[in-house]
This record gives sequence, C-alpha cells and structure tokens, in this order.
Amino acid sequence: MNLASLRVNGKRLQSSLEEMAKFGATPGGGVQRMALSEEDKKARDLFVMWLKELDLKITIDDMGNIFGSRPGKNRSLSPVMSGSHMDSQPKGGRFDGILGVMGTLEVLRTLHENNIETERPITIVDWTNEEGSRFAPAMVGSGVWTGALDRGWVYERTDIDSKRFEDELIRISYQGSVPAKKRPVHVYYEYHIEQGPILEKEGKTIGAPKGIVCLHWYDVYLHGEANQVGPTPMAGRHDALCAAAEMILKVNELPKRLGGNMVATVGEIQNYPNSRNIIPDRVHFTVDIRSWDDGLALKAWEIIRKDFDAIATRRGCPIKIEETWKVEHSPFDVNLVQRILVIGEQLGYSTLHMVSGAGHDASYINRICPTAMIFVPSISGRSHVEVENTKWEDCEAGANVLLQAILQSANEK
Amino acid sequence: MNLASLRVNGKRLQSSLEEMAKFGATPGGGVQRMALSEEDKKARDLFVMWLKELDLKITIDDMGNIFGSRPGKNRSLSPVMSGSHMDSQPKGGRFDGILGVMGTLEVLRTLHENNIETERPITIVDWTNEEGSRFAPAMVGSGVWTGALDRGWVYERTDIDSKRFEDELIRISYQGSVPAKKRPVHVYYEYHIEQGPILEKEGKTIGAPKGIVCLHWYDVYLHGEANQVGPTPMAGRHDALCAAAEMILKVNELPKRLGGNMVATVGEIQNYPNSRNIIPDRVHFTVDIRSWDDGLALKAWEIIRKDFDAIATRRGCPIKIEETWKVEHSPFDVNLVQRILVIGEQLGYSTLHMVSGAGHDASYINRICPTAMIFVPSISGRSHVEVENTKWEDCEAGANVLLQAILQSANEK
Repeated sequence: MNLASLRVNGKRLQSSLEEMAKFGATPGGGVQRMALSEEDKKARDLFVMWLKELDLKITIDDMGNIFGSRPGKNRSLSPVMSGSHMDSQPKGGRFDGILGVMGTLEVLRTLHENNIETERPITIVDWTNEEGSRFAPAMVGSGVWTGALDRGWVYERTDIDSKRFEDELIRISYQGSVPAKKRPVHVYYEYHIEQGPILEKEGKTIGAPKGIVCLHWYDVYLHGEANQVGPTPMAGRHDALCAAAEMILKVNELPKRLGGNMVATVGEIQNYPNSRNIIPDRVHFTVDIRSWDDGLALKAWEIIRKDFDAIATRRGCPIKIEETWKVEHSPFDVNLVQRILVIGEQLGYSTLHMVSGAGHDASYINRICPTAMIFVPSISGRSHVEVENTKWEDCEAGANVLLQAILQSANEK
Repeated sequence: MNLASLRVNGKRLQSSLEEMAKFGATPGGGVQRMALSEEDKKARDLFVMWLKELDLKITIDDMGNIFGSRPGKNRSLSPVMSGSHMDSQPKGGRFDGILGVMGTLEVLRTLHENNIETERPITIVDWTNEEGSRFAPAMVGSGVWTGALDRGWVYERTDIDSKRFEDELIRISYQGSVPAKKRPVHVYYEYHIEQGPILEKEGKTIGAPKGIVCLHWYDVYLHGEANQVGPTPMAGRHDALCAAAEMILKVNELPKRLGGNMVATVGEIQNYPNSRNIIPDRVHFTVDIRSWDDGLALKAWEIIRKDFDAIATRRGCPIKIEETWKVEHSPFDVNLVQRILVIGEQLGYSTLHMVSGAGHDASYINRICPTAMIFVPSISGRSHVEVENTKWEDCEAGANVLLQAILQSANEK
C-alpha cells in the first residue's frame, strides 16, 4: 500500500467531534467542559471506550492523563506521541483542544482499518486541565508529566468552590496508579485550531508554528483616595481608576510604539469601592505581553514600567507591581516544522510558517522531545467563545497532515 | 436671658457623637450603620430615649422617620424643623448625618436646661435611609415624606440579600402607624459636615451653601469582541476595556475643558469576562456629573456623548447609554442662607458662601419650605470613609450657629 496516498475519514472525524460537543453543550452553540467536571468525565469515558475499540493499551496516570498505545514493529523504539486536551473554557468552543485528540484518534482509526503497522509505537494522549480556567494554572497535566510542575502542589489547587484538584480527580475516577512522569518520546505532534485570524486572513489552510511566543504576566495595584464625588473638586483628586485608564491605554499602544511582533493586553480589572458616587481608591489590573522576541517583550515592559511610574506619580496614586509569570518563547523542532509545511504542500493545501500566540501542552513536551504543531483556521479568528468555529474540510485537512506526519515519524528507525 | 449669648455644651455634643459612634464602630475608626440594620435600630433606640428625657412628643411614621416635637408658646404656628440622618455608608465615618441629628439634640438640650420657650414649636428629625447604600435610592425617608417618592415603591426596594425595605423596617420595630406625609413647616435647617476640602482650604469654620448642585447619572454599556489574547493581533481588536479607558479619561478631563464649577466622575466599572487572557468584550461604567449650573452639566453631557460615540465607532465597540437619574440644582432660601452667614460672623466664626456638592435630605425638604444648611470642615476633605473626621471645636461651632438660627426662626411670629 502506498502510505503517501492514505487519507483520514473526514466524515468520521466530524462525527467524533459532534459526539464530544454534546458533553457540556451550551445554548450558544459552544461547550462548557471544565477540567474534572461531570462533562469532562463523560467525554473521558467515551474516549476510553473508543480507544478500547482500537485495541490500544490504555494507561491513566495519577494526574488523570489518558494514554492509548498502539504497538510498533520494533518495541525497543520510543513512540511517536500525538494529542491535546479535552477540557474547555467556561462557555468555550467545540474545537479548542478536542480537535487534536479526535484528530489523532482519526489517524489511529485510519491506520487500524487499513491494518498498517509502523516501526515505532504510536501513543495518543489527552492531557488533564490544559485550560486552567477551573484550576489555575494551565497545562498542569503535561506540566507534571514533564517534571516542570510538582504533582503535590497541583493536587492542592482549588476551584472557585474550594474543591481540591485531587478530590475532583478521584471523584470522576480518573486518578490512575501510574505516576505522571515523562518517558522517552521520539517526537510529539499537537494538532490544534489557530485561535487567531492569521490563516483566514492569509487564505491558508495549514499553519506550522515555528514555536510559541514568550508570555509575561504582571499584576498592577494602584492606591488612590476615596471621597464623596460631589463635594471633592477635580484638582487634588487621587483617582485610582483614572490612573488605571491611562495605563490601560499605554499597554494598548505599546505594540504600535515598539513595532515588531508583539501583543499587549489588559484583560482583568478590579475597582474599589466601585460605587458610582465614591472616587475609586483601589484598582488592580493585569498586563499580558507576548512576543516571539523575549528581548522585545522585556524592553516593552521596561518602557511601560516607566510610563506607569510617571502616571502614578502625577496622579498621586502609589503603584505596586508583581511579576506573576514569565515564560520564554519556545521554538519547536526546525525539521519537524519543515516536515509539516512540506506534507501540507504535498497534500495540496496552502501552508503558512507562523508563530503560536497561545500556550499549549506542546510547550512543556517541547522541553523533552522534538515537537511541532499543526494549525487550521479559526473562522473570524474567534476562540474561547461559544461561536468558535472551524470548517469541517479544514478539520479533515489538518488530520490528513497529522496522519502523514505521524506515519513518517513512526517509520523512522 | 439674652438669647444671643446662649451657647451649646460642646463637651456634651462630643459625648453624644461618641456614644452614637459605638453602634457599628469599625476597626478602622469609622462606622458601619446601614439603614434598618441592627446597628441602626440600636442608634434609634438610644435617640428615642434621649428625646424622651427632654419630654418631647415622639412620632414615628410608616417610613421609620423619627420626629421629636417641642411645643412653642403659640400652638397654631408651624414648627421649625431641624435634623439629618443616622444611617451611614458601609465603612463610613462618625460624622456624616449623625452630626446634624446630635447637633439639633444638643440645641434642644440647651433650650431645655435653660427653660427657654420659643414662639413656635421645634421639631427634631431623623430621616430614614439617607445614604441609599443598603436600599437604593438615597433619601427615601424625606422623599416619601415630601411626596417626591411613593411609599409602596420604596417598601419593595431590596438590599443585596434580597431583604425588602418594609420587612426590615418592621423587623427593627420602626414602622410607625402615622403616614409619612408632609405637614406645614416654617423653616428647615440641616447641619452637616462639608464632605469636601473647601472650608479647610479656605481656612473657614462655617459654610452656608447657597444650595445643592445638580446631579446627572448615566450608565454606559460597551460591547467589544472577546478573543484569546495571544493569537489575536492588535489590529482589528474590539477591546471594550480600552474603549472604556478612553471614555473614563474624557470624563475626567471634562471639567477642565469646559471651565465653570463642575465635577465629573466614573466611580463604578464592570468588565467581562474579566479574565487576564481574554480580550474584554463587555464593559459597564457609570458617569456622575454635578454642577451648580444645570445648563453647563447638560452641555458637558452633549460634548462627552459625542466623544463617546466617536471612540465607540473608532474602536468598533457599539455603545448603549441610559440616563439613570437627573436632579436639577436646588437653591436654598436666600434669606435663610444669609442668616447663617450673619450668625456665623456674629459668633466670631469665619464663614464661606459656597455650594453643596453632595445631595442631602434638605434637597427634598427645600421643595416644601424655606431651607438652609450649615457646614463645618471635613479634615482633608475626607468623607464616606472610616477616617472621616471633624474637629470637636468645629462641631461645637456649627451647633452654636444652628442654635441661634433655630432660636431666631422659632421666635418669628
């Protein structure tokens, strides 16, 4: 059989995604399947059932990561690993994460029904709690597995109702006995929606990110002076919300000011006492800066830091800043990324060499083995919302690229 | 006895204020005595006991307003009324409202111990729920009494725990049987802290506001587009928080731009989904504009409205605006205001003709009878906060002015 002409079953892939979208379906057409919830459990149960139909060796580790292993001809070779996550944002979409798991499943089903044996084993994986929206931080399943995070620490994370991560893992019966610990992996692939508008805008079907941008998170705290708004003249006010407003605009203008590939965002703000007739005296807001160029992001922060200090001083609102999280940019394996681009072109799809603005489990796995991702377009660039969407034909295209990539890697000796 | 030389007992006034400050005392040195709370009930019980000691005729109406009447020589003449409120803001201060009630009580005690009879009756009053911070809106006791608000409507107002106003009034046993309904009043005085920094800045002890500024409240709603921050380029974003930040600064700059006596404030903001890695797609904020010049306030709104529309259009964030509340400026009785200034000077205090930036029960009473207020300095202009403070000697000074003003008005035939 000519492996290069092998294709996945697009209809079957669509049907798997539609089945999964039922678990946590929202009235707005999206999915709410938070990590370790009832909906997550149901999705996991169905996933495990599907893995069993393919006679895979199923392993669930003590982080709830689910692995399904298909043997290769040579058992002494390390496996090709491919997967993503099945949890979602609150009121999230039907493609984020689950596409990479169902896409890999479709690849394995295609190999199974064609009785194709590869040199190396192939392992499909569902990583626990990638989103981090129920239990912060994000990507804890892959984080513990690669040794970047401590299992005991993750177990103690609590959700908004003070429920412990470990208790919820036990409750849904997905705390396996095998320790979550990295093992040799030949290469790792993660197939995912782009979550941005670039592919659509450029009219391309397949994106091969050269890696994941750096991520700098800051928490800013401002102190002003609360007073009744009516009798307090404008001159001499210390309005913490006005100081914050100036800073928010500075953050927003930063990428334009500095040029280069960068995004800077204030997504979260808390204002106190938050009463319409009291001058705000306390504001907390977040800053998120991402760039492929770590140096540019640091330079941006240096500049904004000076702006913030000047604004705080001028408005008489003392400022406190916490550097909450700092992840360097993560370049994927150059050869694997090239392979994705070549396969895409060979299959007749238009391709784009790009960057990933979002973090993925692939960031952690990239630390222990050659890694690459495959992106397909997000309609209107929308993601983490109920209207998140991707064309079925693009889902199929990405899975075909994944199939060929896995085949090539799995037949490397 | 020479009435003009009569003075209140400053120590006794201080002691009354200190007693009252125990009900709802906060660790930060302030008071939390929300309307119709247990603390409000205790303050009311003590107040009623003190009224009884002066042999006043006590009336509690069905809004929980408490009146204490001291007879005059001529029972056919309408009374002089004086008072304020005993409820506080959450984490409010020890002077806002309660000073006017304890100040009037001190005047009555002074008349009582000197066996002074006046031509007209004198009525002390504690108005229910002036602050409006537990049950919105503000000033409902005086509002219903003057016929500006409907009693049934106020009864249905609920607090944050969905407790009904009427139920709470009954619970603390302060729903009287007398209907809250205006009766003829000769003049109304309200003694209050300034709640602003003007008197202190000008080095004056007694303020006589010529009236209360107008008050315009608006609620602004912005719609943007939520997306994962990482993969969404800056160009083409519809960030509702950035649009709001621009608008907040426009509001803040408005008084400087237009000149004249005006304050403009954004005190409250809600941001959605308020997650650090999602572009905000929904923001609600409030606008509070106050001026002595109603026309200027309206002109300001016209200008800001155009600014808002331009910002909303440029950022692609549709805007919706509600005009929530509009109260015209309320000029007090010119002669009464003049009387306060003259008495102040006669007693040797420095005085200032000014405006009140805050609303007071006096606004409603001003609609039915000649009204004036007496202000004393707020240290650093702080109010509605725990550190709200006024010198004891200033408290005494204001009460002396109130004493003389009440005496003059109560002896008018």
